[in-house]
Amino acid sequence: MTVRARSSVAARMREIADIGRDPVRGGYSRHLLDDADLALRAWFRGSAADLGLEVEQDGNGNLWAWWGARGPDAVATGSHLDSVPGGGAYDGPLGVVSALEAVAQLQAAGFRPARPVAVVAFAEEEGSRFGLPCLGSRLLVGASDPAAVRARSDPDGITFEQAWRDAGLDPATLGADPARLADLGAFVELHVEQGRDLEDRGMPLSVASAIIPHGRYRLTVDGEGNHAGTTPMAGRRDPVVALAAAILAVRDTARAAGPAARATIGRIQVTPNGTNVIASRVEAWLDIRAAEDDDVRAQLAATIEAAGRAVAAEGCVLTVAEESFSPIVAFDPALTDRIAAVLGGVPAIPTGAGHDAGILAAHVPTAMVFVRNPTGVSHAPGEGARDEDCEAGARALADVLRDLAGDAS
Amino acid sequence: MTVRARSSVAARMREIADIGRDPVRGGYSRHLLDDADLALRAWFRGSAADLGLEVEQDGNGNLWAWWGARGPDAVATGSHLDSVPGGGAYDGPLGVVSALEAVAQLQAAGFRPARPVAVVAFAEEEGSRFGLPCLGSRLLVGASDPAAVRARSDPDGITFEQAWRDAGLDPATLGADPARLADLGAFVELHVEQGRDLEDRGMPLSVASAIIPHGRYRLTVDGEGNHAGTTPMAGRRDPVVALAAAILAVRDTARAAGPAARATIGRIQVTPNGTNVIASRVEAWLDIRAAEDDDVRAQLAATIEAAGRAVAAEGCVLTVAEESFSPIVAFDPALTDRIAAVLGGVPAIPTGAGHDAGILAAHVPTAMVFVRNPTGVSHAPGEGARDEDCEAGARALADVLRDLAGDAS
Repeated sequence: MTVRARSSVAARMREIADIGRDPVRGGYSRHLLDDADLALRAWFRGSAADLGLEVEQDGNGNLWAWWGARGPDAVATGSHLDSVPGGGAYDGPLGVVSALEAVAQLQAAGFRPARPVAVVAFAEEEGSRFGLPCLGSRLLVGASDPAAVRARSDPDGITFEQAWRDAGLDPATLGADPARLADLGAFVELHVEQGRDLEDRGMPLSVASAIIPHGRYRLTVDGEGNHAGTTPMAGRRDPVVALAAAILAVRDTARAAGPAARATIGRIQVTPNGTNVIASRVEAWLDIRAAEDDDVRAQLAATIEAAGRAVAAEGCVLTVAEESFSPIVAFDPALTDRIAAVLGGVPAIPTGAGHDAGILAAHVPTAMVFVRNPTGVSHAPGEGARDEDCEAGARALADVLRDLAGDAS
Repeated sequence: MTVRARSSVAARMREIADIGRDPVRGGYSRHLLDDADLALRAWFRGSAADLGLEVEQDGNGNLWAWWGARGPDAVATGSHLDSVPGGGAYDGPLGVVSALEAVAQLQAAGFRPARPVAVVAFAEEEGSRFGLPCLGSRLLVGASDPAAVRARSDPDGITFEQAWRDAGLDPATLGADPARLADLGAFVELHVEQGRDLEDRGMPLSVASAIIPHGRYRLTVDGEGNHAGTTPMAGRRDPVVALAAAILAVRDTARAAGPAARATIGRIQVTPNGTNVIASRVEAWLDIRAAEDDDVRAQLAATIEAAGRAVAAEGCVLTVAEESFSPIVAFDPALTDRIAAVLGGVPAIPTGAGHDAGILAAHVPTAMVFVRNPTGVSHAPGEGARDEDCEAGARALADVLRDLAGDAS
């Protein structure tokens, strides 16, 4: 058992600061069941044990640390420990660390919760290894088919099933867990803000009003592979050139769709990806967000038309596959209002980012707390949060837990 | 010792047909000191031993199999065993296999060479792992600095030095080997054609007149990484979009430079390469070829100007680094004429592809023999050569060795 002079969010963040650093991209690369993820899971178990919490890993790889016996009407709080490739330190871990710190502070104050409290760390929230964001929470609520998840492959061609087995886990445990879900009376996810709204308002904390809808699509451009030196420019069917034209079409379509629309291609895979080879195929992942569900669909249709034209003009073929669609999520208004009041009347702001809270919201009264991010940068090493804001977030989360869980003494 | 009923190129090609297949890209991925390359090296040693040849690996990883004691005025023939990622079966291995087969046929006919004959397999001709084409031959002739080669990294971030040591090799042996070079009286490389010239002429074989010049450049586009969902389209500095505009500029510049000009981007690396992340950096490798050295330089200058404008318009920064420049190579006219005569008056055609023969040509009388490729496809699984053309190539190479090495009996 570790003895801490005085616990804090900053001290807990330092405990994991060296896990999963990415020497190439900068920041952190922590992906489901890789060495970093396994180290973070071990750290979580140790931190929870230090607080006397009982830790269990559910059938979908999510970790639950229970303060009080697991049972009905539980108050859960937490986030995720994985990152995007080369992500920041806070996206995910801040919510888990703040939850542990809030529990520690409540314990130090002698508080005893009337309702069970759970600190949760969801698996593969970013979807960076197997392409499905909120993988752990989607499986938990039954929003993703376990067979389809098992068949997914990571960038090295390793299937989810293989990775799962390699970690000593049983694929038969994957899938919906309604009994666990039924035990949850509330879920509150604290998260670093992914934008500069709070910085511009001069406020450290807010609650979330909604998550705007979000679609992910894989674009495959097929052309004709050949030798870069011996193939004349005329008559080439180069999928790299075709994708380049498509990328500009994607951007132009999003710009034309209005200020709330976003379209991004941030991941590209060229086959065979050799310097002296005209590629035969290029895959690119398209991320679309907009204010309403129908706006995403309309933007996708316009994008496919414009990109398809651009690709066809290069003699190549475009195919588009939906990898995920996340409809707009409105958080629980009563819970959100209650938390905002506990926090002293903080604003409610929408977010363009997906979260496990967005998956749980359809099944459990759910709310989010955001901590100010001075740079507004997200999913990159430049993401940040001031120490004093992080500590304020944990104190606020402790107040929220005290209010929601109720005093048993 | 393997007993062969009757040797052939086809039978020898079958011996290596399962080594280094690429299940994702198709074709073969055989890169310096990977499992496939090590298996091919073991196969080469075994095949040479079956012919009673003495095999040595020089200080730069090139394999030499000697028929007769190594000594002055040797006649060397061979090519390379590595491939581009997802390359064809013939580019490289056909020259090595044909050399072994030619020796086998000469031995079967009771021929004893007056000059030493060497079958050579050069290391990392494609440059697919460490980005330097003709790495083994460049080091041999002193065209590349061993210290710079040692510091190169592969796509996984492993340095050449590390890979070299991991294979049990000594980095101190890398570098120019003038004594070995001085022993070579001639080098003949047989290679599958990388175009459809012979198919169009209806001829199975040719010699090479020249290798057109060739430059490789790394383009780095730096932008600003951020969250794909929370960052408005306006104000983004997305290096993927910037690269897309640059790729179109590269293609347009090459088209404007005339029919002999080629410019290809076949390799792209996005950082961090996440679906829900605006990238912070993209690297792309540019391959330029043209009729004359100055044409390559002029095309590069025009490309940098056009691509730089396109990148700057997206608020990003373009930097360009030369990775290699291979000037035009004219093969030895006397040797080429002699071989063409032995082969019965075949044509001499230029090629847009680089070869170890191009590196050796500045130091040793050098020539090439091309074998017809019905598809004209190169550096892709669709590359091909008919069995009867391959056998004709080996017979022709035997005739050339007989003529050049002279009969000692």
